[in-house]
Amino acid sequence: MNAVTEPDCVFNTIPDGGICAPKGFKACGLRAGIKESAKKRDLALVYSERPCTSAAVFTRNVVKAANIIVTGEHLEKSGGRIRALVANSGNANACTGARGLAAARRMAALAAMRLGIAPEECAVASTGVIGVPLPLDRVEAAMEALAAGLREDGADEALEAIMTTDTRKKQRALEFALPPGNPVRIGAMVKGSGMIHPNMATMIAVITTDAALSAPALDKALRRAVNRSFNRLTVDGDTSTNDIALVMANGAAGNFPVESESPAYEIFAAALESLCVDLARQMARDGEGATKLITVTVSGADSGEDADALAKSIAGSSLVKTACFGADANWGRVLCAMGYSGRDFNPETVNIRFRSKAGEVEVCRNGAQAVFSEASAKKILLEEEIEIIVELGNGAGTAANSAAAGTAWGCDLSCDYVKINGDYRT
Amino acid sequence: MNAVTEPDCVFNTIPDGGICAPKGFKACGLRAGIKESAKKRDLALVYSERPCTSAAVFTRNVVKAANIIVTGEHLEKSGGRIRALVANSGNANACTGARGLAAARRMAALAAMRLGIAPEECAVASTGVIGVPLPLDRVEAAMEALAAGLREDGADEALEAIMTTDTRKKQRALEFALPPGNPVRIGAMVKGSGMIHPNMATMIAVITTDAALSAPALDKALRRAVNRSFNRLTVDGDTSTNDIALVMANGAAGNFPVESESPAYEIFAAALESLCVDLARQMARDGEGATKLITVTVSGADSGEDADALAKSIAGSSLVKTACFGADANWGRVLCAMGYSGRDFNPETVNIRFRSKAGEVEVCRNGAQAVFSEASAKKILLEEEIEIIVELGNGAGTAANSAAAGTAWGCDLSCDYVKINGDYRT
Repeated sequence: MNAVTEPDCVFNTIPDGGICAPKGFKACGLRAGIKESAKKRDLALVYSERPCTSAAVFTRNVVKAANIIVTGEHLEKSGGRIRALVANSGNANACTGARGLAAARRMAALAAMRLGIAPEECAVASTGVIGVPLPLDRVEAAMEALAAGLREDGADEALEAIMTTDTRKKQRALEFALPPGNPVRIGAMVKGSGMIHPNMATMIAVITTDAALSAPALDKALRRAVNRSFNRLTVDGDTSTNDIALVMANGAAGNFPVESESPAYEIFAAALESLCVDLARQMARDGEGATKLITVTVSGADSGEDADALAKSIAGSSLVKTACFGADANWGRVLCAMGYSGRDFNPETVNIRFRSKAGEVEVCRNGAQAVFSEASAKKILLEEEIEIIVELGNGAGTAANSAAAGTAWGCDLSCDYVKINGDYRT
Repeated sequence: MNAVTEPDCVFNTIPDGGICAPKGFKACGLRAGIKESAKKRDLALVYSERPCTSAAVFTRNVVKAANIIVTGEHLEKSGGRIRALVANSGNANACTGARGLAAARRMAALAAMRLGIAPEECAVASTGVIGVPLPLDRVEAAMEALAAGLREDGADEALEAIMTTDTRKKQRALEFALPPGNPVRIGAMVKGSGMIHPNMATMIAVITTDAALSAPALDKALRRAVNRSFNRLTVDGDTSTNDIALVMANGAAGNFPVESESPAYEIFAAALESLCVDLARQMARDGEGATKLITVTVSGADSGEDADALAKSIAGSSLVKTACFGADANWGRVLCAMGYSGRDFNPETVNIRFRSKAGEVEVCRNGAQAVFSEASAKKILLEEEIEIIVELGNGAGTAANSAAAGTAWGCDLSCDYVKINGDYRT
């Protein structure tokens, strides 16, 4: 079952909230000169005044950026006590060899020194071009101003400093109560806009919370949330060299520390998942060159994993994406993409519908074309948010598990994607 | 080892040769009205005057077009004696349910009746839009003229009749000698031009030969050739609903039937492979919206399978493709695509070179940026045929297997691809 378990609890969105919405977090973003643009911010710092419990999820790519390796080391060395993050855009510090590793370590050490914390309490994230040495001198020159600039309202500029081809600021914060009634907050910012294919641009997600949690509870909640949000954006999961999702919990809310398997855990985990899902949808909507957000849901599968895999295969298909871009109700491509997902199903019991705020139309019934109006289908697909709804019927599942459903988010594939990526580096 | 075993033998290309180059084959193509265009041919027939030994390879997609299912049945029912193929473009006859199956059977039966052969001796292939019922009445109305039009110089028009978004006619024929000296010929035509992603357009390959072979030898040679040619074009192998490669051997050359494991088999198999590799490269070059042919070679892997998978992952990467389109020497994307291939290797011993007729440049040495001139790299990548050469170094392989190499072919990703596929159907 993939349905979100929403406990009886309300998550209130904090207007314009981000990583500084939880108590005790400060941030700063400025221009260090890593990016070529003379105006754009490219160096960010996030810091918790109090020690933190932390957890992180990293890319599964065999080729890992230097900052990913170093942050993993720091997470382990500090015993999950990371309380600061220094991040840059304009350079991925990936495929940079021993020199890149030294640069990432130095970047963390420089920030830690200014903050008066141990180097291993500081994480590093980088995004940008691969294979070019990080201009460490510029990071070093900017560090004093960066640390001095930390403010409780610095979330926006920190977010700007990690953006690359992103066209929108993607952040959110929630407030909710943990038993017996403590108000706590979770805030997050995310960078990433290359959603057209699993091999896309870096995702950096930074999540802060003033809730207190045990290390295992925080780790478990992060993994669950990432699996049900960011990992549903792509076919193969985390596949850039630089992807990272980091959560820092500083306990400033004063709640009784949340342990796994408790009612408080369920509430926290659901809130974190809700936040990440929202950010994942924002990322899909902001896909490079994207004009539409596509949500794919598959129901009636043998298992949630099957349903997720089928949904991802559809959302990842270049042919489905281009058809959505062209508002062409080419449902055969949906079925074709399911067919090469590697998951088994009976094509003859598949129903497919397209839905948007302009209406809903069934385009495929029992694996063959349904009777529908091309004009209405076109009208539905011209909207900016499209849903592709697939029911596997009773072909694959049994009564007991036929409710198994999955979701994936993607975007259309436009000419602008090609333009953006055709000369990204030079 | 993936290197082609080329026996001491010369394969001579027959100028403008195709499926009618081998003795005893006739073909015809005409306009039946399946395509909307008032001018384009859309129905083809290929026929051997003599009984044939035949073999075929089909798509691995779970969703199989009606013609694929029916041809599979006919291959089995006839005991591998298919000697004719009726094929159409303009309609894939996929996702068309029981009606589609009946239509495919009827199409074969109509052709067989005109040819005076058993229905199961006739294969069916279709390509075009998915999910729309095949206009069987138009096929029926055209069948008499189609059979009457069979000619020894009909290869060109038969090929035209199976083309969709193809911009070039892709065909070739070879002549060579089998021991003790019999001249034999192999001819082929292929349709397919959506090479931008594994989930692309239909491939139809029709191969004819006047050589005599045992059924197991023919089957084995076909599978080997397809694995080393068409399957190297894409990440997941055959993944459209309609892909088929069919070979018919009529023995008209009068050679002693070729058995597996014989010297004659090695020669025939090498010739077939050479023919298919040439056609695969023609297909990549004719990719939808493609401006460049990209050949990726990976050497020094643990196994040929690893090398092939790494090469395919690179050739299939949207980011690598767009970089090639933009002539941007973004080698980091090459390494990144290797990293999510699912195969293990040591990034720190990887060398990458770009080569074309404009020269050669090393862009990555031991996993990090090599010293190179951006201007020369750009000049090399502006060519129409680009090679990406990857050496895994001694990180993964041992001395014994470090020669394990693999190849993949692809094309760049251009704006025109999006335009072609954005409104393919309507």
